[in-house]
Amino acid sequence: MENTEQHKIEYLLPEEIEKRSFEIISEELVQRGIQIPAEEEFITKRVIHTSADFDYVQTLCFSNGAVTIMKDLIRKGADIVTDTNMALSGINKRALSKFGGMAHCFMADEEVALLAKQRNMTRAAVSMEKASAIEKPVIFAIGNAPTALIKLYELFRETGYKPAFVIGAPVGFVNVEAAKELILGTDIPYIINRGRKGGSNIAAAICNAVIYQL
Amino acid sequence: MENTEQHKIEYLLPEEIEKRSFEIISEELVQRGIQIPAEEEFITKRVIHTSADFDYVQTLCFSNGAVTIMKDLIRKGADIVTDTNMALSGINKRALSKFGGMAHCFMADEEVALLAKQRNMTRAAVSMEKASAIEKPVIFAIGNAPTALIKLYELFRETGYKPAFVIGAPVGFVNVEAAKELILGTDIPYIINRGRKGGSNIAAAICNAVIYQL
Repeated sequence: MENTEQHKIEYLLPEEIEKRSFEIISEELVQRGIQIPAEEEFITKRVIHTSADFDYVQTLCFSNGAVTIMKDLIRKGADIVTDTNMALSGINKRALSKFGGMAHCFMADEEVALLAKQRNMTRAAVSMEKASAIEKPVIFAIGNAPTALIKLYELFRETGYKPAFVIGAPVGFVNVEAAKELILGTDIPYIINRGRKGGSNIAAAICNAVIYQL
Repeated sequence: MENTEQHKIEYLLPEEIEKRSFEIISEELVQRGIQIPAEEEFITKRVIHTSADFDYVQTLCFSNGAVTIMKDLIRKGADIVTDTNMALSGINKRALSKFGGMAHCFMADEEVALLAKQRNMTRAAVSMEKASAIEKPVIFAIGNAPTALIKLYELFRETGYKPAFVIGAPVGFVNVEAAKELILGTDIPYIINRGRKGGSNIAAAICNAVIYQL
């Protein structure tokens, strides 16, 4: 195998690679003089591990006691609802199921597509209404659609439905920041990535970080 | 709906949101004084749309004529092989199938898991070997595992197997940069995101950008 001096392949066992990655992240956080509150550290580091982007240190926002609340929810069997099949596919569903929880995404449901067309709404917004009928606590893991967050906010303000937890990490340029601010202004427990960045991978990484801690 | 002055919800139809997003990206590229070669523009912009991260302008690398080569491959029915189910789930498989192509991910195959264990390799590396047996041109869309890129490089150097196209966008801290440099040093047609950043979403976005152009 040819390698330049600068870019050497390290021959590590697969299980060692993740460990080494987290060591590098920890070292670079120290070098950058960044301290993360102990409760949030494993989540922020996993998001950096997923994105190779240290900007998330500045933008991840946690409501009071968010991590403890989310751990309790998963431990007690809460379901997770995502707004993309990509996020659904990234969540470790086997580990989640050990606690009794299921992960869902309703975006590809025919019924959701039909209702969205009839009512001139996004499928993401209709999916949230559908999820709000689930008769157990639901963690919403939103990595794509600001309209999902807007719909959750509307349900909360207008119907009194309160999501057990919202992970708000849509990515993009239109309505993304505003939708996140709406949830930040409520007393819904949340982990929100303020600003434009996020993604299905980020939403899934936050879910997995918590699942792996239990 | 309450909105701060700074973060206003824009009431746009779903189909208008993507259009507006790309307008914002184009405007900000101009503001930053960035010009992207015309052939590559729609890919770079879709990656920014997916990540809200303008850093990709600096790191996306295209081999000579890469976009034309990839368009031709898809038009002629090439398959796509990913290294994660997340990337597979993000690719517009219906649009791809109109040209005769299929998207695959072998990571969850039992046979792959077994072989990886027996041979002390990553499942990603075994998946690449399996994909190299597909009897039609294959576009590899790698968004996670540097070992997938390393294995493709080894197959090329040691067996003469030449991937029709490699999208190299693993993300991370260990071997990621080095694995990308290996492919950059070959004459395999590629789109590689140099450096640490990337992800399954980025690999899928590059595939979709090209599919949507056809």
